[in-house]
Amino acid sequence: MCDEAVVTVNGKWESLEFDNPSVTIVRMDRILSRDVAGHAGKKATLQGWLHKKRLLGRLNFILLRDRSGVTQIVVEDEAEIKKLHGLHIGTVLVVSGTVVAEKRAPGGAEIRDPKITVAVPVTDEPPIEIDKPLSHKSANLDTLFDNRVIGLRNLREQAIFKVQAAVKEAIRQYLFSQDFVEFNSPKLLPGATEGGADVFKLDYFGKEATLAQSAQFYKQIMVGVYERAFEINPTYRAEPSATTRHMTEFITIDVEMGFIDFNELLDLLSNLLNVVVDNVWKNKAQELKLWEAKRPVLPATIPTMTMAEIHERYSKDTGENSVGEKDLRPDEERWICEYTAKNLKSQAVFVTQWPASEAKFYHKLYDDKPKLAERFDLLFRGVEIATGSLREHRYDKLVKQLKDKTGSGPDAPGFKYFLQAFRYGMPPHGGFGMGLERLTEKIIGLSNVKEATLFPRDINRLTP
Amino acid sequence: MCDEAVVTVNGKWESLEFDNPSVTIVRMDRILSRDVAGHAGKKATLQGWLHKKRLLGRLNFILLRDRSGVTQIVVEDEAEIKKLHGLHIGTVLVVSGTVVAEKRAPGGAEIRDPKITVAVPVTDEPPIEIDKPLSHKSANLDTLFDNRVIGLRNLREQAIFKVQAAVKEAIRQYLFSQDFVEFNSPKLLPGATEGGADVFKLDYFGKEATLAQSAQFYKQIMVGVYERAFEINPTYRAEPSATTRHMTEFITIDVEMGFIDFNELLDLLSNLLNVVVDNVWKNKAQELKLWEAKRPVLPATIPTMTMAEIHERYSKDTGENSVGEKDLRPDEERWICEYTAKNLKSQAVFVTQWPASEAKFYHKLYDDKPKLAERFDLLFRGVEIATGSLREHRYDKLVKQLKDKTGSGPDAPGFKYFLQAFRYGMPPHGGFGMGLERLTEKIIGLSNVKEATLFPRDINRLTP
Repeated sequence: MCDEAVVTVNGKWESLEFDNPSVTIVRMDRILSRDVAGHAGKKATLQGWLHKKRLLGRLNFILLRDRSGVTQIVVEDEAEIKKLHGLHIGTVLVVSGTVVAEKRAPGGAEIRDPKITVAVPVTDEPPIEIDKPLSHKSANLDTLFDNRVIGLRNLREQAIFKVQAAVKEAIRQYLFSQDFVEFNSPKLLPGATEGGADVFKLDYFGKEATLAQSAQFYKQIMVGVYERAFEINPTYRAEPSATTRHMTEFITIDVEMGFIDFNELLDLLSNLLNVVVDNVWKNKAQELKLWEAKRPVLPATIPTMTMAEIHERYSKDTGENSVGEKDLRPDEERWICEYTAKNLKSQAVFVTQWPASEAKFYHKLYDDKPKLAERFDLLFRGVEIATGSLREHRYDKLVKQLKDKTGSGPDAPGFKYFLQAFRYGMPPHGGFGMGLERLTEKIIGLSNVKEATLFPRDINRLTP
Repeated sequence: MCDEAVVTVNGKWESLEFDNPSVTIVRMDRILSRDVAGHAGKKATLQGWLHKKRLLGRLNFILLRDRSGVTQIVVEDEAEIKKLHGLHIGTVLVVSGTVVAEKRAPGGAEIRDPKITVAVPVTDEPPIEIDKPLSHKSANLDTLFDNRVIGLRNLREQAIFKVQAAVKEAIRQYLFSQDFVEFNSPKLLPGATEGGADVFKLDYFGKEATLAQSAQFYKQIMVGVYERAFEINPTYRAEPSATTRHMTEFITIDVEMGFIDFNELLDLLSNLLNVVVDNVWKNKAQELKLWEAKRPVLPATIPTMTMAEIHERYSKDTGENSVGEKDLRPDEERWICEYTAKNLKSQAVFVTQWPASEAKFYHKLYDDKPKLAERFDLLFRGVEIATGSLREHRYDKLVKQLKDKTGSGPDAPGFKYFLQAFRYGMPPHGGFGMGLERLTEKIIGLSNVKEATLFPRDINRLTP
């Protein structure tokens, strides 16, 4: 039994004494909302933003927001109430008072008899609600994004990006545990990596440069260096239309590994998705609850179906004939996820055996079925969240495929460095690219990838 | 005593069962170099690249490289030796044989009586050495970078980027432990964030867009959301000259935190640098050894000196008069680091009290010394690796500083979203930007930031 799996990345960080006071920034004059209940019966000072204000007469209280949550503060003294007169949500406050256990308050305690100091007054009403859920209806998305700077202070919006950060971290930790090395490839390139029209061009000291549409070539090159490598970085596509799935800038999880076969690649991604779901549901339960997110139904091994099989079943079931088509229809993607959810207890499915005619030059074709590529898409809850393949690793075959697909020879400027990796030895390898925003969207159950993007960019939007 | 410091990010991941076989990709037909010694006396199969070849007659051996290191394989059988005839370093091999303990071999064991399978032959000699240290003399850097795709397979080059990955991970884990949330801000912007000529412009569907020169505005906006936020992402500067310190694309660690004062900001960065050094020296000792890297001399609290003080001491010591200058000279930066190393046992120093005339509009000036900004540079081993400041958080003062510095009003397109954050409540806050490549360079002891960049970009270089 080999112990390839015994990797200590997690162990490593355990030994870091982060809660050693010498490496911790603690403000002794402040406690956080999450710690209020632990101070019951004592005096405490909080700092944060006015998050809600109910000073209507009977029960007068405010909510104070800090990075850890909100605290209810009962304000009865007229002089204190007066201080808040005319001030809006967002006002920065310092509040000192007595902590009293109170089951109905957030966190199980509240502050009474507060002395309030207005640190930074806000005299204008915010342009968007901070203390009530914001509408994510498609008709309201422009309002949502136009007011993003302030709207993100809404706890429900915050939750999306806390989940996203947790997704990213779970992915990294899982990949570290499997011996992957993280790298950064350049996004400024001399030409379009994989050709195509959807590339941004820029002026580079009088020459033309482009923005990377993918890290494809670099991640394959890194297999020659580390065997297993990944990066999580921005990707740029000049998508000429605004859809619910596409943006001009998004974060891709690019993963590539050597000395593996097709099934091992699917296994890695299957495990990765499971690890992400396990961890996000464990560590971000509160945030997911704000969205009533339903835990995805996923088996340990995500099922696999060939494209031909899906076309056949879909055509039979719906009466729409897709047999022989070279891609899945959007409706078919939704249909197959529902089908596998019902019949295979999986809201995710790998679509395999793509037509070679649609393959990229670097895709590996099946040695025994050269009309099919060893490529897959991972569909999850009705949408493609990742696409990957084995790569052709044999120099001569790769050069031939390049010639056949693009007309370029091995010394063409856009390809020569990539091909060097193969000329000087590349093992069987494969990998995938997965969109961080799409994954976040589908985990939470949003309906537009932009909702899972802090400051989305598309053909119509470059701000805020 | 508040328990703000008890943060469980690390704890969280501990509970992930990454070495549970169900989420681990293990090839049962292969062991890794690092595990060879544990198999002494047994048969084993390895897969990897031919890394060194000594088949000269007497002692015939090869080194096989995989992601975990190299294994020595003694080849005595003529038929096996013949298989390697004409094949070069980089050839992909599968080697089965008997593991024998051997003190002089890397890892303390070697393979004897091997059966060799050539999986992918390499018939051309690599354009750069893989098994010997590569020259990093400045005259040879173009050769180094032109051949980067293959040169990175050199263990000594690999080591740089393993250290870099560890630096990045240590930074993230420390920031997580201090309640920071990771975010991604857009790099496609409608205009130059902070003005200036060194901005890349691109065609965005017929309009003009620019590439982010910094995440400054977004990280400050995120303070209004999470109090503490960071991102580690690419930054773009159209630097018109090729120097040892500048590139057109680099990775910045952008950190911003609210409800703090200037000293707390310095404390955070002081701790961060110490945590990075501790962890890299603990976890990447082998890699650092390949570069004979010397552990930086750093006290728990990095010393602080004002710019005026440094000018005075430097002028007295060197006879060069810099008193009254509004920046440090490059030579002065080197000098002060040597000075603090000798006198204060610190190879790092915070330079504080920068002239307000040189400040950005968002810098906070000292309330009691309005001719000085609450800004710092962190110098480390002779070079600036981070720059930061407290930010002006009061809307009216900020609007005035914007007007005074740039002539723009609060509704100017480049500033209006940024200013929203302040209009609706921002606490005292500050942050810094630190260059990942410069930090890596200085930790290892390299002399050009490009040596610490996988595929560097400058005015003359857009490839590989």
